[in-house]
Amino acid sequence: MKGVILGINREANVVDLTHQVRSFDILEAAFTLARSYPYFPNGTVHVAVVDPGVGSTRRPILASTERAHFIGPDNGIFSLVYEREPSTVVRHLTAGRYFLDPVSQTFHGRDMFAPVAAWLSKGVSPEQLGERITDPVRLALAAPEHADTGVIRGAVIHIDKFGNLLTNLKPADFPPGRSFRLLLNRREVTRLVTDYAAGSPGELLAIAGSAGFVEIAANQRSAAAILGAERGSAVTVIFD
Amino acid sequence: MKGVILGINREANVVDLTHQVRSFDILEAAFTLARSYPYFPNGTVHVAVVDPGVGSTRRPILASTERAHFIGPDNGIFSLVYEREPSTVVRHLTAGRYFLDPVSQTFHGRDMFAPVAAWLSKGVSPEQLGERITDPVRLALAAPEHADTGVIRGAVIHIDKFGNLLTNLKPADFPPGRSFRLLLNRREVTRLVTDYAAGSPGELLAIAGSAGFVEIAANQRSAAAILGAERGSAVTVIFD
Amino acid sequence: MKGVILGINREANVVDLTHQVRSFDILEAAFTLARSYPYFPNGTVHVAVVDPGVGSTRRPILASTERAHFIGPDNGIFSLVYEREPSTVVRHLTAGRYFLDPVSQTFHGRDMFAPVAAWLSKGVSPEQLGERITDPVRLALAAPEHADTGVIRGAVIHIDKFGNLLTNLKPADFPPGRSFRLLLNRREVTRLVTDYAAGSPGELLAIAGSAGFVEIAANQRSAAAILGAERGSAVTVIFD
Repeated sequence: MKGVILGINREANVVDLTHQVRSFDILEAAFTLARSYPYFPNGTVHVAVVDPGVGSTRRPILASTERAHFIGPDNGIFSLVYEREPSTVVRHLTAGRYFLDPVSQTFHGRDMFAPVAAWLSKGVSPEQLGERITDPVRLALAAPEHADTGVIRGAVIHIDKFGNLLTNLKPADFPPGRSFRLLLNRREVTRLVTDYAAGSPGELLAIAGSAGFVEIAANQRSAAAILGAERGSAVTVIFD
Repeated sequence: MKGVILGINREANVVDLTHQVRSFDILEAAFTLARSYPYFPNGTVHVAVVDPGVGSTRRPILASTERAHFIGPDNGIFSLVYEREPSTVVRHLTAGRYFLDPVSQTFHGRDMFAPVAAWLSKGVSPEQLGERITDPVRLALAAPEHADTGVIRGAVIHIDKFGNLLTNLKPADFPPGRSFRLLLNRREVTRLVTDYAAGSPGELLAIAGSAGFVEIAANQRSAAAILGAERGSAVTVIFD
Repeated sequence: MKGVILGINREANVVDLTHQVRSFDILEAAFTLARSYPYFPNGTVHVAVVDPGVGSTRRPILASTERAHFIGPDNGIFSLVYEREPSTVVRHLTAGRYFLDPVSQTFHGRDMFAPVAAWLSKGVSPEQLGERITDPVRLALAAPEHADTGVIRGAVIHIDKFGNLLTNLKPADFPPGRSFRLLLNRREVTRLVTDYAAGSPGELLAIAGSAGFVEIAANQRSAAAILGAERGSAVTVIFD
């Protein structure tokens, strides 16, 4: 993919964001991208590939916001972009003259996404690349459920490489000064802090994380291992 | 290596192709390179290091085609380049003035390959770098055996990170419309398709892969795990 | 971090050194950096993050030598730089106008180190970034002990991905021509060579490695696996 991009635009500055996303794990890719793209300069073209289930069933798409472009398969990988940027315009990439020739059936990243990204960076406009669509695939991201007054039922939606557990809870779900018990696999967390290093080594903490979600972490330890937690594990918050 | 290159040519655009090749695995490196180099722009200098068995027994070499240069140890890593590009000229890198001083015995990538690559990118000619040789090391790549009319005996030559099995069979070995049974570890594959997503989840398929070889894959699953296959596993195709 | 850097200095050439350092492993990061930085061009700004234990307890620092800048947490990650470059000037990064706003508590690499690195590359001077400090954290690196005439007691301080064991012994500890027995987990090494390929496959060798330390290696094998060695394993050298 890098070779294809540089063959079209020798001046392109190609940046690796990550190669650590697990195969087929669209949600993890969506999170990684959502956490990173706001920090890139205006006009950045992001290319994302995670799902090898390529072929006719996945439309190649371009999602454009005011600040950036996103190119990849229509498998939900840009769901968090759509959620945050309501003015996103999504197009079905159909202008074959901007693809490699021939297009293989097994590597759309190289044959379609990379060349389209390079042509965009050279000034080709989104309008030249395909027709607008209004039904891109969106992942069903569980939102926490405010079950009763004083009870929230959420879930672990992502586990990072340190074993920190990202939940679908937001810091705003925790009123300042109100005491709570956060329950996860029969363990209790009662402190919301702003700093991984706040606890004693191994102590479980809730943290307002850099992705905008509340994370469960253990100072210098893997919270996932301590709690036996997995993605999808239930998280219940009870306010006293 | 990147520091050395940028120290000689500050304008160099250094691209990481992969850091995932297993130690000592020259064949995997050769495949990865062969699958990628045709997509890079004319004039690209490729540097490849995989084998830490450096030292006097491995000549540092430069292989030059009409479109690109390849720098690395003479351990067979460029075998697929030689096979595809019969006009490749190989040189033994001996012009010590283009190496770092001193050259360590344990990191030729940094001390010889990287500086030579940078000098090439600055306009030094291959002729200045060493004498032509005609006996570079070539890997003995198993070719499939057409045992009888209607029987081909091949092998798995590479397993990618998704568990897809690359065989040494070519799509041209499968006449269009002729039915076949491909046997691998007592399992049978009877469909050759052009698309990973063609099967039901977990179904085994033969695919005309992007590297030019027939791959055995399972939609959204690891074919290697399903089949218990390893590199070298026998693959037999019987045409009906 | 790359996005932040490019947002401030679009001309920056961002190079990935490694993403393979284990979480929390400051010593491994210090080694990786020490082995690499001398090969980068004058003026390079190195950014290093390894410890997620960020927060108020770790000062963000800038260490400047005559040739390069180093930005990261004050957790000892630059200890080998201090040791080799006695004229290093260390500053506590306090000039908030060069940070992202707001600074999160959980990702100083993105919010403080990356923007400061970009501003340095744009010509902001170290003096503008914070006050000099004289008490940066230094790792206590075990030095080998010259126990008796003819006996040195050292340790394994690092194991690379090939299973080579870096010790804290220096080649200068081995007088040329003097025979020795190096003992590690009841196995003996008696040859100091300059080349991984010098031995027969699997033979244990002492090598003057590219990091400036004596390494224990096995030709085409993992010395760590053969010896059951870990970081911290004792290494004793007895001269005859």
